[in-house]
Amino acid sequence: MASQFDTETHIEPTADPADGRGEWSTHLTSSWNIGTNPNGGYLVSPVLRAMRTLGAHPDPMTVTTHYLRPGTGDASATVEAELVRTGRTVSTARGRLIQDGKGRIETIAAFTDLSEPGDVPLTIEPPDMPPPGQCRERSGLEQGVDLPILNRVDVRLHPDQATAGQAEAAVVSGWIRFLDDRPVDTLALPLFADAFPPSVFGSLGYVGWVPTIELTVHVRRRPEPGWVLARFETTDLSDNRIIEDGVLWDSAGNLIAQSRQVGLLLTD
Amino acid sequence: MASQFDTETHIEPTADPADGRGEWSTHLTSSWNIGTNPNGGYLVSPVLRAMRTLGAHPDPMTVTTHYLRPGTGDASATVEAELVRTGRTVSTARGRLIQDGKGRIETIAAFTDLSEPGDVPLTIEPPDMPPPGQCRERSGLEQGVDLPILNRVDVRLHPDQATAGQAEAAVVSGWIRFLDDRPVDTLALPLFADAFPPSVFGSLGYVGWVPTIELTVHVRRRPEPGWVLARFETTDLSDNRIIEDGVLWDSAGNLIAQSRQVGLLLTD
Repeated sequence: MASQFDTETHIEPTADPADGRGEWSTHLTSSWNIGTNPNGGYLVSPVLRAMRTLGAHPDPMTVTTHYLRPGTGDASATVEAELVRTGRTVSTARGRLIQDGKGRIETIAAFTDLSEPGDVPLTIEPPDMPPPGQCRERSGLEQGVDLPILNRVDVRLHPDQATAGQAEAAVVSGWIRFLDDRPVDTLALPLFADAFPPSVFGSLGYVGWVPTIELTVHVRRRPEPGWVLARFETTDLSDNRIIEDGVLWDSAGNLIAQSRQVGLLLTD
Repeated sequence: MASQFDTETHIEPTADPADGRGEWSTHLTSSWNIGTNPNGGYLVSPVLRAMRTLGAHPDPMTVTTHYLRPGTGDASATVEAELVRTGRTVSTARGRLIQDGKGRIETIAAFTDLSEPGDVPLTIEPPDMPPPGQCRERSGLEQGVDLPILNRVDVRLHPDQATAGQAEAAVVSGWIRFLDDRPVDTLALPLFADAFPPSVFGSLGYVGWVPTIELTVHVRRRPEPGWVLARFETTDLSDNRIIEDGVLWDSAGNLIAQSRQVGLLLTD
């Protein structure tokens, strides 16, 4: 049986791709919403699927998405993508998601083949973390919004960081997996990198909404099965814009992705 | 008198922009070369100029560039750009640089107005650094290549980090300014973020060539006049790909930009 993630990010070509360009239709659900709008990592997933069909490489390696306007759940969308270059080891493509004639996201990504992990001379070690059963489930309380996405992904936060205003730094860390046990793969990592509460909700005690302006996810290797561990930190908040860095590890402790986003801190 | 940077990244429209799209011609010089090809930060500068003309906001805020093929100096190039969205506070555009009919770089960027610096609740403090006069000039020796770019920018490296294989971490830090005293502005920061030797040339002792696959620069505020201080570090090197993070500060100690790139470590 197809997983929720695969079903709900499925794309259907509306014409045969030609000259490295294609157009697809997709149907966004509201099941991945943060509040009343689809999660940003969810929006990029069908676009990545489309871009990937155009080149010869299966794994997204670097994915940059600009969030232009919120998406709408329980509504159809058009995906456009075009190949920019395909080489021996890397394919590069652009893509976008359109609803009601308006661009919602604009993405550029490079794909490669990560099927054979290479040497790792330098890495970032995972932080100490209680097992998922000793962590707190993410709730909507820290953002003051409903989180339908928690019916799709299981997010467990470090118990010391889970309450707004009580953590020691602008850090959020915890575990994540698909609730229906779909295995994590490289396509899912941009979603996982965007499914935690903003790290400024910890020490700084902010609540509300931090719309992402731009999110870049670097995938480093294919994950081993099991829970993914993630840690996000904001060390640079200026003029109401945060830079938040994330690191993700698989169940074997391998660094599988890094992320960085610039987001707008709405404090009213 | 126009500065070298402004003259050598000048763009000329080849037709009046219409429907948020335009095309420009530019002439790349080899004066900004690393070895035999133009520096990546130099290549993006005329594209940023073009993108900026399409929207209403003067300062690049987040700039992502994919490097598809090396550029060629002392040759003309075509710049194409199109506006993706323009809003009250942010304009987003795509652009590319083409030579001999082939895309060299593909860029997406969001622009805003940084004329009034806001509050800074969180920042990254600059590292201790000897003054420029006590630092070592960057030379081509650490890369084994000629560096014509050093006739355009003055790069002074921390004396403890300037020799391959002798530093304590994969860190490069130092000062940078335009040699002709052109003031630094937000347009120049993507160039400054890409003008230091790769940080893996320190502790790891690598020499050679680290082609950038993708570089994202986040501009945080307009710089005060004077030398720019920069620090780059690689903490994640896997399967011959590095993630290198950079932070740039102005002469007053303000954090003015952050950068992150994924680059390919060619070790043969």
